[in-house]
Amino acid sequence: MKIAIFGAPGTIGQHVVKALQADHEVISIGQTRGDFQVDLTDIQSIREIFDKIGHVDAVINTAGAASFNNFMDMTQEEWQVGINSKMMGQINLTRVAADYLTDNGSITLTTGILSDIPIKLGVSASTTNGAVEKFVMAVATELPRGLRINVVSPTVLTESLPDYGPYFPGFNAIDGQDVAPYYVRSVLGVETGKVLKCFAGT
Amino acid sequence: MKIAIFGAPGTIGQHVVKALQADHEVISIGQTRGDFQVDLTDIQSIREIFDKIGHVDAVINTAGAASFNNFMDMTQEEWQVGINSKMMGQINLTRVAADYLTDNGSITLTTGILSDIPIKLGVSASTTNGAVEKFVMAVATELPRGLRINVVSPTVLTESLPDYGPYFPGFNAIDGQDVAPYYVRSVLGVETGKVLKCFAGT
Repeated sequence: MKIAIFGAPGTIGQHVVKALQADHEVISIGQTRGDFQVDLTDIQSIREIFDKIGHVDAVINTAGAASFNNFMDMTQEEWQVGINSKMMGQINLTRVAADYLTDNGSITLTTGILSDIPIKLGVSASTTNGAVEKFVMAVATELPRGLRINVVSPTVLTESLPDYGPYFPGFNAIDGQDVAPYYVRSVLGVETGKVLKCFAGT
Repeated sequence: MKIAIFGAPGTIGQHVVKALQADHEVISIGQTRGDFQVDLTDIQSIREIFDKIGHVDAVINTAGAASFNNFMDMTQEEWQVGINSKMMGQINLTRVAADYLTDNGSITLTTGILSDIPIKLGVSASTTNGAVEKFVMAVATELPRGLRINVVSPTVLTESLPDYGPYFPGFNAIDGQDVAPYYVRSVLGVETGKVLKCFAGT
C-alpha cells in the first residue's frame, strides 16, 4: 500500500511510520519536517500535497492543535485554533483525501481521551475531539467507493508525561509504540465509523 | 426564578416557555420574535441582551442552525454555519451567561439525536452536536459559583415530521410537549455535565 501519514514526524506519527514502513510505501508529511510540509488549517495546502503525491491507498493523520486555557479566560482566537486545526483541519483532510484515495481506501484521524474525560484547561480539546468523533461516525455512512474512516483516541502518552503529566492525574499512560497498532488496525482492518479508544474504561 | 429562554418562539422553545411560565418569570428571546432579539452567532449581540435583562437564575437555549448537505458537496461556508451558530453560538452563550447567572444558576443547551445516530445530509449537525455535548461534559467541571450546565438532545419532533420526516426513517418521534420536561429537569434538578437524551436506545 501507498500510505500518506500527516503528522509523521510527531510523537505518535513516528511510531505509526515504524509500524507500517516495512511492508508499505510510507509518505511522511509534517508541518515543518517530513517529505512534504502541510498547513492543516489551510485546505489549499492540503490539496497541494495530494497534487504532488497523487493517489494513495490510505491516509493517516496524527496532527492537530488546540489551545489550552480556562473556559472563563479563553478568547475567540483561542477557540479558533482548535476549530481550524484539530476539527476542520481533519475534516478538510478527509474531504480532500476522498478525491485521491483508491477504491476501498481508508482515512484514520486522531482525537484523544479528552472527549471522554475532561482535564484542567482542556475544554477546547474536549469540544473539538468530540466534533471529530461524531464527524467520523456520520461521514462513514456516506463516503464513496468503499472508503472507510476511523479515528484513534489515545490516552496520554508516556512520552508526554514530562510535559503534561500533572494534567493527567491518575490516568494510565500508553507508550507511543502501543498506540501504533490501532492505526494499523484501522488501515488494514475492515472497520469504519469507529472511535478506536487506546484506553480502558471512562 | 428569572429564566431567559433563547429560541423561545421556536417549536421546542414554545413548549419550554409553557412548562415554566406558570411558576417563573420567563424572558422570551428569539432571532426575530420574542421580548428581545439576538444573533447567536455574534457574542456582542449576546452580551447586549444580558446587559438589558440583567441577572438571571437560569438560561435555556433551544436555537442553533447547521447546514444540511452531502459531505462531498459541503462548502467551507456551509460548515461555518454550524460552527458559528450551533457550536460557538451555544459556547459563547455559555460564556456570557456565566457572567450574569446568579450563584447556583444553570445553563441548558440543545443538541439532538444526530450526535448519536447519523442521517442523510446530517454530517455537519452530527459534528457540531458532538462538539456541544463534549463541551458541556468538560465545562461543567470548571464553571464558577456552583453554576450547572446540561444539554438536552431530542429525537425528531412530531411537529417536524411534515418537513423532515423522510430524513428520519424508523425514528420514533417525540411531541414538543414531551421534550419540555427535560429542560425543567435541567433547570430545577441537581445534574450537571449531562446529555439529557429524549429518546431510548441508539
